[in-house]
Amino acid sequence: MINFDIGDIREAADRIGRHIVRTPLLNAPMLDAAAGCRVFVKAEPLQLTGSFKVRGALNKILSLDPRSLARGVVTYSAGNHGQGLAAGAKLVGCPAVIVLPNTAPAIKIESCRWWGAEIVLYDPQTQDRAEVAAEIVEKRGMTFVSPFDDFDVMAGQGTAGLEICEQMVERDLHLDAVVVNCSGGGLSSGVITAVRDRFPDAACYIVEPQGFEKMARSFTTKAPEKNSSVPNTVMDAIAGPVAGTKPLSVLLRHPVVGVSVNDDEALGAVAMAFKVLKLVVEPGGAASLAAVLSKKMDLAGKNVAVLCSGGNVDPAVYARALVRQHG
Amino acid sequence: MINFDIGDIREAADRIGRHIVRTPLLNAPMLDAAAGCRVFVKAEPLQLTGSFKVRGALNKILSLDPRSLARGVVTYSAGNHGQGLAAGAKLVGCPAVIVLPNTAPAIKIESCRWWGAEIVLYDPQTQDRAEVAAEIVEKRGMTFVSPFDDFDVMAGQGTAGLEICEQMVERDLHLDAVVVNCSGGGLSSGVITAVRDRFPDAACYIVEPQGFEKMARSFTTKAPEKNSSVPNTVMDAIAGPVAGTKPLSVLLRHPVVGVSVNDDEALGAVAMAFKVLKLVVEPGGAASLAAVLSKKMDLAGKNVAVLCSGGNVDPAVYARALVRQHG
Repeated sequence: MINFDIGDIREAADRIGRHIVRTPLLNAPMLDAAAGCRVFVKAEPLQLTGSFKVRGALNKILSLDPRSLARGVVTYSAGNHGQGLAAGAKLVGCPAVIVLPNTAPAIKIESCRWWGAEIVLYDPQTQDRAEVAAEIVEKRGMTFVSPFDDFDVMAGQGTAGLEICEQMVERDLHLDAVVVNCSGGGLSSGVITAVRDRFPDAACYIVEPQGFEKMARSFTTKAPEKNSSVPNTVMDAIAGPVAGTKPLSVLLRHPVVGVSVNDDEALGAVAMAFKVLKLVVEPGGAASLAAVLSKKMDLAGKNVAVLCSGGNVDPAVYARALVRQHG
Repeated sequence: MINFDIGDIREAADRIGRHIVRTPLLNAPMLDAAAGCRVFVKAEPLQLTGSFKVRGALNKILSLDPRSLARGVVTYSAGNHGQGLAAGAKLVGCPAVIVLPNTAPAIKIESCRWWGAEIVLYDPQTQDRAEVAAEIVEKRGMTFVSPFDDFDVMAGQGTAGLEICEQMVERDLHLDAVVVNCSGGGLSSGVITAVRDRFPDAACYIVEPQGFEKMARSFTTKAPEKNSSVPNTVMDAIAGPVAGTKPLSVLLRHPVVGVSVNDDEALGAVAMAFKVLKLVVEPGGAASLAAVLSKKMDLAGKNVAVLCSGGNVDPAVYARALVRQHG
């Protein structure tokens, strides 16, 4: 029996609501024309820290008992989750440690520091990040926050799905399908749980980088699969090594279909979001939109929610994506 | 006696509300830190057609009598106003003609056509665009829609200011200052009228390209001034030749201060909006944000609304702005 349902997501929404941005659900006639369906883009790049990750991090932090809260939280992601956790901790006023390799780009280190997190550097040649974090948990009594394999984190990410439902209802519209980017599955498990509660017949799709469909394979084997190699993809935000056990257990409750997109398709969606939505989306955050624009699924004429999950993209990468598509 | 007040803007909001996007008021802690004040960005790039212009165009169209409406509207802008008018006409189902030079970039022509407008090309070597439009008005009974020198258009643009006020009130916040991009003055006259109605002590600033401060000069002479030459600036959206007579008459009612920014400052604001807001803003649309970030005014610690007016920027120009700032 899995201890995770819509009630957890509603509680998360109550807990984190006043701290986060209720991101808009964007649409554009030109996008609908290109996709052949009505596309509603949940714009998580407009979320605090530029991605959905602060939702789950904050829900985890606010679920801690007072003593654990005072001791703080630790993780080892330099990406969207690390920034989300650092921001969540700052909003609540608890300590946060981000464990980073001493080879991490200065800009990522600076960003975590900006949010007030303590940075602990390790040598990836001689040390294991999980061990470094475990030592901090042991010695300082901090709570390790997984980027996805945690019901509180999943419930927090699910609030984005709850908002999608509310925003569709506000417009008197039925939701026929939801398309979500997927790596570990924290976001997709939460969002799909929320969407299927309000729209039980909604078709659900997760999108992964082509060739690295660890979650789609997990649906078949019913066990958390790993990527066979380190993904060589521009979609770094959804290129993690392993599917999450807890997210998988939740996703298996619903008829979820796995689709995948390649780098060209992702970059095309980045350029389309620039052109018609004026929204900065990172390649991994645009995979969902890419799947719809590339017509990987039959969605003709339907109302489709597309979760664009983040916008933290290197300016040079972004510039190349635009020039490549348009230039 | 000028026939323009907050009542006109409220009526416009009622008229156009169901057709347009209530754009979000964005904020970001990193932006506040950079600006030294609390910045609330009214994100008009997220408006239909990527700029505020559809507000005024639509209000003008919906103010026409049934006979004029059936005959349609005409203008001669290939930029944001042309697209806004084309989209407004399509939403309402009336004909629209956009008069364009036969030298106009294909992408602008296509965009107006996409929205269903009829394109009439003229030869800028031998014909005058105003005369071409006047002939269409004469022969086809269409209504010419000025991009700014029209009270209905000004009232429509003012709805962005009304929304800013509502969004500040929803957050229980007082607005201390508003900063708006200015060319002909359609946007700034409407927005400042709305803001000063709700927050009578709000400081008001208009922002123009440095060296081309036609409206600031008009404040001094109390007459609509022209730019002395064609502006050589990346801020093309606010580089029109002349200040509007009607907008000037409205702006002169309020203590409005004119400031200006150069191209470097505008491009820096474009890059900052990319980085911390994940919002695509065109250089002319970012002039207001540039003025705040460059600390042209003393706004320390204040609540400042910044109207970012549009996001229709050539991908190559945008890519250069990002690489230039970050690369």
